[in-house]
Amino acid sequence: MTQPRYTAANLIDFTASLFTAAGMPRDRAEVVGKYLVEGDLMGHDTHGMAQAPGYLNNLLEGKMPAAGEIDVISDKTVASVWDGQYLSGVWLTWKAVDEASRRAKEHGLAAISIRRSHHIACLAAFLEIATDQGLAVLLVCSDPSVKAVAPFGATEPLFTPNPIAFGYPTSGDPVLIDISASGTTMGLAMRAKGEGGRLPGEWLIGADGKATDDPEALFTDPPGAFLPLGGMDRGHKGFGLGLMAEALTSGLNGFGRSQAPTQWGASVYVQVIDPEAFGGREAFEHETGFLAEACRAARPIPGTTGARMPGDGALSRKRAALADGVLLHPSILPSLTPLAEKLGVALPEAQ
Amino acid sequence: MTQPRYTAANLIDFTASLFTAAGMPRDRAEVVGKYLVEGDLMGHDTHGMAQAPGYLNNLLEGKMPAAGEIDVISDKTVASVWDGQYLSGVWLTWKAVDEASRRAKEHGLAAISIRRSHHIACLAAFLEIATDQGLAVLLVCSDPSVKAVAPFGATEPLFTPNPIAFGYPTSGDPVLIDISASGTTMGLAMRAKGEGGRLPGEWLIGADGKATDDPEALFTDPPGAFLPLGGMDRGHKGFGLGLMAEALTSGLNGFGRSQAPTQWGASVYVQVIDPEAFGGREAFEHETGFLAEACRAARPIPGTTGARMPGDGALSRKRAALADGVLLHPSILPSLTPLAEKLGVALPEAQ
Repeated sequence: MTQPRYTAANLIDFTASLFTAAGMPRDRAEVVGKYLVEGDLMGHDTHGMAQAPGYLNNLLEGKMPAAGEIDVISDKTVASVWDGQYLSGVWLTWKAVDEASRRAKEHGLAAISIRRSHHIACLAAFLEIATDQGLAVLLVCSDPSVKAVAPFGATEPLFTPNPIAFGYPTSGDPVLIDISASGTTMGLAMRAKGEGGRLPGEWLIGADGKATDDPEALFTDPPGAFLPLGGMDRGHKGFGLGLMAEALTSGLNGFGRSQAPTQWGASVYVQVIDPEAFGGREAFEHETGFLAEACRAARPIPGTTGARMPGDGALSRKRAALADGVLLHPSILPSLTPLAEKLGVALPEAQ
Repeated sequence: MTQPRYTAANLIDFTASLFTAAGMPRDRAEVVGKYLVEGDLMGHDTHGMAQAPGYLNNLLEGKMPAAGEIDVISDKTVASVWDGQYLSGVWLTWKAVDEASRRAKEHGLAAISIRRSHHIACLAAFLEIATDQGLAVLLVCSDPSVKAVAPFGATEPLFTPNPIAFGYPTSGDPVLIDISASGTTMGLAMRAKGEGGRLPGEWLIGADGKATDDPEALFTDPPGAFLPLGGMDRGHKGFGLGLMAEALTSGLNGFGRSQAPTQWGASVYVQVIDPEAFGGREAFEHETGFLAEACRAARPIPGTTGARMPGDGALSRKRAALADGVLLHPSILPSLTPLAEKLGVALPEAQ
């Protein structure tokens, strides 16, 4: 049986229609649809439409307000704090990258830290908003309501995987980095657990202090935890990155774990840099393009095709999906079908 | 035999006197002495006074100018590029952190990217300049004249370990993160090679594509390389961090690997953030202090003392060294003795 393929436009319209039917203004719902589907186009399929059921349920329960405005807590020319009021994190992040890009083009750099955002889905999906304008962008988030990763040297989960995404333009394709400061992400661990399987590496630590690939280690009493990036020997490095993310998000916006929030959400940091204000866009893209080409041409590990730049795979999957149609992960539409029926939204038609 | 101990003041004076005798103005030489010895105080003894012989030789050969001014390439309010002219990187970095701190206090954030700096020694040594003022600081560097780390998926060395340091204040001690985007650093690999030993982990990749702990793998023909942080399975993450560092340094300042420089040096990025311009210094330090205490108290790996915050060890070593005297790594004074004799500078007296 051939798997069905969908056009990106149909998936965006379907997703936007679900959010609209659940009460969100259509213009915001279209932003949410666009950046969720962008995750699937890039192949980051745990952080695209797979997040929609959780968001829609929070919307229907009133935990994510359907509408309402951002509360601007502080606003200097290049430094702002927004209280996102748990509005859609996808919409808030899009808006923050857009606004910080505008300000960076005027001043060279600009940052916005957002407290009490809802979950923001796939960080990589937002980077091209800036790189398409010749800008570099740093996007970081944490969730102060969730404890998953242990500090290096401990087994107790205390903070989140804390993704750090950084996008920048080159003379060719942009480079789109999106890594968590832990060995693996919540999405992948939960998918492995759901399938009764193991992770591809020992990226967790059991309560016994031993590295493991078994996602069940997260559910013992007391629980184990995600290991920081670098694992049992180099995990002080991932721990440092995770702490940096916590400082840029909940530190700068002043709302975090000390308040012990329980609502699923995100604390977000967006910073945009305009190379034109430094050594110039042309010199920047020449230099970054030179290194990208050198990396792609580097002597490969024997028997492999060698190095790809971060984003190369995602951009190639996106181009293929736009040309040939999107193959959704098989769990996605079944998870949305009950909500689509409840909200009276027709499932997307295959190509 | 008891190892000799030295006062920090004597070591700073000795180091400053060497640089002065080699032609550097005394005020700059004192900055160099202070921040090199700071590395030894913190226990980062491959990146403190151990760097002085290399710097002095470059100074005597005219490869590091003894004096001269920074060439300011571009200067917007919060975004600047300096051409460091290969002046002392320690002096340039001190000056950039100081200047960016002043600007951040006015505008919320400020960044300076420096091309053609000389080597900058221990990044962690500069962080307290900002954290003592309640500021957060990001300090990143690369050296476009050196190829050591392979892209993830390749065995060919193409860029440097690219340290990323981030310091921020808390309600208690500051957090001082200083990590490289590779599994290990040049200093540690060279020390292991010199001693004919192995590294503590398989942080290198041989030309055969296999992970190894043997530093000799860097000197085969063709050579192996440093693995990015994350190693053989998660190395795409360290690769991403290394690329981010290259973009912030040589990308933004417009001088890097595409020009194939041969002079030992550094491409540096300094960015300072003032929490007061975001959610406020008090809220920032409350939040970061809360998480730091939670991490220190986290359930430890059985049989260990548990987690320390980045910087805890360095600050504790520094306090002990200031109270009891500095124990230098045994290789350091012997490596400086011929230069001290040549320059007519007396060796430091032990306590």
